[in-house]
Amino acid sequence: MNRFKVSICQMSVSNEKQKNLSTASDMIKMSAAEGANLVILPEMFICPYDLELFQDYSENYPEGETLRMLSKIARNEKIYLVGGSLPERQGKRIYNSSFIFDPQGEVIGKHRKIHLFDSNLDKDVCFKESEVISSGDTITVVNTAHGPIGVAICYDLRFPEIFRLMSLSGAILAVVPAAFNDITGPAHWEMLLRSRAVDNQFYLAGASPARYQTKSLTIYGHSMLVDPWGEVIAKAGEEEQLVIGEIFPDRLTEIRDKLPLLKHRRTDLYDVYNK
Amino acid sequence: MNRFKVSICQMSVSNEKQKNLSTASDMIKMSAAEGANLVILPEMFICPYDLELFQDYSENYPEGETLRMLSKIARNEKIYLVGGSLPERQGKRIYNSSFIFDPQGEVIGKHRKIHLFDSNLDKDVCFKESEVISSGDTITVVNTAHGPIGVAICYDLRFPEIFRLMSLSGAILAVVPAAFNDITGPAHWEMLLRSRAVDNQFYLAGASPARYQTKSLTIYGHSMLVDPWGEVIAKAGEEEQLVIGEIFPDRLTEIRDKLPLLKHRRTDLYDVYNK
Repeated sequence: MNRFKVSICQMSVSNEKQKNLSTASDMIKMSAAEGANLVILPEMFICPYDLELFQDYSENYPEGETLRMLSKIARNEKIYLVGGSLPERQGKRIYNSSFIFDPQGEVIGKHRKIHLFDSNLDKDVCFKESEVISSGDTITVVNTAHGPIGVAICYDLRFPEIFRLMSLSGAILAVVPAAFNDITGPAHWEMLLRSRAVDNQFYLAGASPARYQTKSLTIYGHSMLVDPWGEVIAKAGEEEQLVIGEIFPDRLTEIRDKLPLLKHRRTDLYDVYNK
Repeated sequence: MNRFKVSICQMSVSNEKQKNLSTASDMIKMSAAEGANLVILPEMFICPYDLELFQDYSENYPEGETLRMLSKIARNEKIYLVGGSLPERQGKRIYNSSFIFDPQGEVIGKHRKIHLFDSNLDKDVCFKESEVISSGDTITVVNTAHGPIGVAICYDLRFPEIFRLMSLSGAILAVVPAAFNDITGPAHWEMLLRSRAVDNQFYLAGASPARYQTKSLTIYGHSMLVDPWGEVIAKAGEEEQLVIGEIFPDRLTEIRDKLPLLKHRRTDLYDVYNK
């Protein structure tokens, strides 16, 4: 497999959908101009991360304007595009969904957030995503010309089983659009991305919006790309910026030869099953 | 459950077994004098971590002199004791085994290292533990007056499944006698201990010898105790020292209320099985 270039768009997210679409569009085009083959947007990039807003900003597949825009840009720029996530409306339900496009603009996969963020981080930060969002029920790995790529969203990152299953499915990279906050972010974001990479010996890309204050949370930022040894290849701070790095599929082989973790799993004693 | 105090003995290990036993004995007694209820020794604390030496230093259970000494100290000091590990001989086989003693000096559990460290870290550091050691086949959780405690050894730390299974068995703490080296240590030791703690929302105790040079590796040190939020409570450098901290079982409840990860596992979609 040949190397390929990844760009994570750590974009500013505002209340104005059109402005967000314009920012996303600009950053995707800048990424392509930098030679990116795969571009990644953050979780809920078209609207603030506010449960009360998701219904208003939600779109149907395939006719939603954001989805049409992402398809067109992927095709025009000839890139793979993980479209962060948006509120996807289907009948009465809303999902937190990531659509994945190929360089022809076709949807090659969709991940609906499996694990919903229902937390009581402190008395001021009580968040119940499940009051508004319905959960997905599929672990997502899409095939690309660069190799299989897993996609999960934010809180999904906290469940090691799904990353193990992605790796066992042959994924060389797991992409995680997310919006960790300023409590969980400093505590866990980098560590979780790095440990999923090290355990599964593949690349991890975590894509956050730039720092901003929602109704109940402050978004952490710090998008990053991590290699299969757990080294951070490229990393953002809090501000709007691109995070660009290269994926070397041979690096997986190298790391797996050094330390054959995946071969050493004792599947005679335990295993992870996808039901 | 009441709080209890843990002491990790980051001891110097030499070629002289008697000296090692004396060091271990002294540090266990110092730990008890500090009020420790649970004392932990590092992996292979009676001999250098050298494959060629394991046969000579190996002991049978229950008559081995180290095992008798550990039993006696646990009884005299009225402590739980995770006896690091030693080469356990059974017939023609040698295991890398951790014996666990209660305050009456009884063996309440034994963990034989499940995953053997066969690596090719670089051209000078090729290590094939499986050439000498036979592997265990049981995930170990022992019941104590303080609650269930899991035990794994060194390379076992790299396999998230067994820590998940410990947590699902009710463990409040996982103890890992280990001897990471100066390549894998700086890269992964703290991150792995912290991420196992965060994913499973229990305490982690990693016990290493003090830094020393074996025939093929340099031992990393940096023993530490990590809480269920991934915070490092107490941590050693490279030198011989005790690492002492307290376990608050209520802290598990607090963290699991804040962020109910274990409840949010989607066992309708996946699960980890102990075969």
